Amino acid sequence: MDTKKCIEEINEAIEATRFGENPVELYEPIRYIMKLGGKRLRPLTALLAYSLFKDDYKTALRPALGVEVFHNFTLVHDDIMDNAPLRRGKATIHEKWDQNVAILSGDVMMIRVYNFFLETAPDLMPRVIRSFNDMAVEVCEGQQKDMNFESRDDVSAEEYIDMIRQKTAVLLGFCAELGATLAYADEKDIQLLQEFGVKAGLGFQIKDDLLDVYGDATKFGKKVGGDIVENKKTYLLIKALETAQGEDAEELRRWVSATEFDETEKVKAVTAIYDRLGVREATEKLMNDYFAESLEAFDRISVAKEKGATFRAFAENLINRDR
Amino acid sequence: MDTKKCIEEINEAIEATRFGENPVELYEPIRYIMKLGGKRLRPLTALLAYSLFKDDYKTALRPALGVEVFHNFTLVHDDIMDNAPLRRGKATIHEKWDQNVAILSGDVMMIRVYNFFLETAPDLMPRVIRSFNDMAVEVCEGQQKDMNFESRDDVSAEEYIDMIRQKTAVLLGFCAELGATLAYADEKDIQLLQEFGVKAGLGFQIKDDLLDVYGDATKFGKKVGGDIVENKKTYLLIKALETAQGEDAEELRRWVSATEFDETEKVKAVTAIYDRLGVREATEKLMNDYFAESLEAFDRISVAKEKGATFRAFAENLINRDR
Repeated sequence: MDTKKCIEEINEAIEATRFGENPVELYEPIRYIMKLGGKRLRPLTALLAYSLFKDDYKTALRPALGVEVFHNFTLVHDDIMDNAPLRRGKATIHEKWDQNVAILSGDVMMIRVYNFFLETAPDLMPRVIRSFNDMAVEVCEGQQKDMNFESRDDVSAEEYIDMIRQKTAVLLGFCAELGATLAYADEKDIQLLQEFGVKAGLGFQIKDDLLDVYGDATKFGKKVGGDIVENKKTYLLIKALETAQGEDAEELRRWVSATEFDETEKVKAVTAIYDRLGVREATEKLMNDYFAESLEAFDRISVAKEKGATFRAFAENLINRDR
Repeated sequence: MDTKKCIEEINEAIEATRFGENPVELYEPIRYIMKLGGKRLRPLTALLAYSLFKDDYKTALRPALGVEVFHNFTLVHDDIMDNAPLRRGKATIHEKWDQNVAILSGDVMMIRVYNFFLETAPDLMPRVIRSFNDMAVEVCEGQQKDMNFESRDDVSAEEYIDMIRQKTAVLLGFCAELGATLAYADEKDIQLLQEFGVKAGLGFQIKDDLLDVYGDATKFGKKVGGDIVENKKTYLLIKALETAQGEDAEELRRWVSATEFDETEKVKAVTAIYDRLGVREATEKLMNDYFAESLEAFDRISVAKEKGATFRAFAENLINRDR
């Protein structure tokens, strides 16, 4: 399976999807967000998982698009809730149109997700929808927990991991599970792929947290330290708040509660505290553990070595990305 | 079938439904809105339609709850969009909690609707979900059109009927269709029941418009003339704007564009214009035509007279309600 070609096919299929026309206030935003791009990682994961067991991955293309539409639905509604002005460098829907348009076009996307799942074999459909639903509700729970964390200063590392598992990791787990399910894989393999996706998803989120502080700004494409400036409750900050003692603890609390400060100075100071506390190493270890566990789960799948090579290369490539 | 007992069973089943627990910000609002009551007309319509063909309507209870959850989901999101402070005399979710909670708990409700549809026979499930989805998207389209109408002063009667058909009537059509589908009714009867629901739904919405102006305030439970005060584009106002000439047209435009006015005076004056133009009679005729067409569709269903009696009595009762 050619990963690059597969992404092109995903993009063509998105382009060819007719969500509707009238009223334009509902459908123009859907076309806009779906075309903003992104790496199409989620449908690709589903199709790669499918290809581990069967060759005709195009059969799984439409259901795989369902997860991409769902992912974009969550972006539209999350951007309202987070008051985000930009998404992938462009105006968010609630900024470009208005909030009501963003709520309602998001709702239509959510409904249409199930039309993609209707294009699965009838014997698989109930299982796919049930599993999708349990996952989708977890994503909403994760988003609510993330919002709750904003006004709390006692979030534990355990709570944080639980939140990112729900908000971002279970979707990747579902993608891998979906592909395997559609290919009629063994129950054991379906579960292992789901585990692979969740563990990898946890690793990716923690990597995002790390890159925000320690990433190469030119490669990362975002301002380094943005999370520190905003006091975003990342694994690094939570871990630092948990472990800091004496002067470090005092200084960290001071920066977190400061209302006026020089951004560069804050980023530098908080990063220095992270370094002194060994937070970077602890976070990297956690990330690497999750990545290792995800690959271990993958390696336990009963597929021929050569079948698994493309998938494993894709996974390793993702794990090693530096932006 | 005992209609009153059936409503009790619907309420008990709603009470017994576990949507989730944690985080409470997500599930407390869902329990709140689902318990606010309402007449449960939609699931009741589904179960009455089912009972036309089969006796064991409890089989259809869970899927029928799906439409009630969907209906309440639309209320939660519409109330945000319409900035509504009250729903059934109680604070709306976005008022009682906040807007983000309302968006997200609405999303969870929307997702959970499909869990109720998963409790249908596997051979019916794809049809039920496909039909529900087409209807649900129409409801969103209707809501967007309704919002678009607010800033337009050239809405035609035809556009208005199209909007209320989508925003409110197709849901009742789906309820009747759902019940018949779950009872394995003939295709012809399924379509007739769908038609019954849509036509009745159109009649009910037009009746709401009429009651707002000509209803008995003590029975209606709302302030008479609220739509007139707010310039709400009801069938009456649209028809009046369409047909008014000369002085009537001028006076109507003056009231519609007035920013400061005495509410009682406006209601009295606009009602007088409606009366002079014969708008009340035209609207009552349209409503009665829809009700007649809905009953005609119903009477063409191939069910034994005695089986249809409960349903027809229910429909006539609804049609003749004065609040």
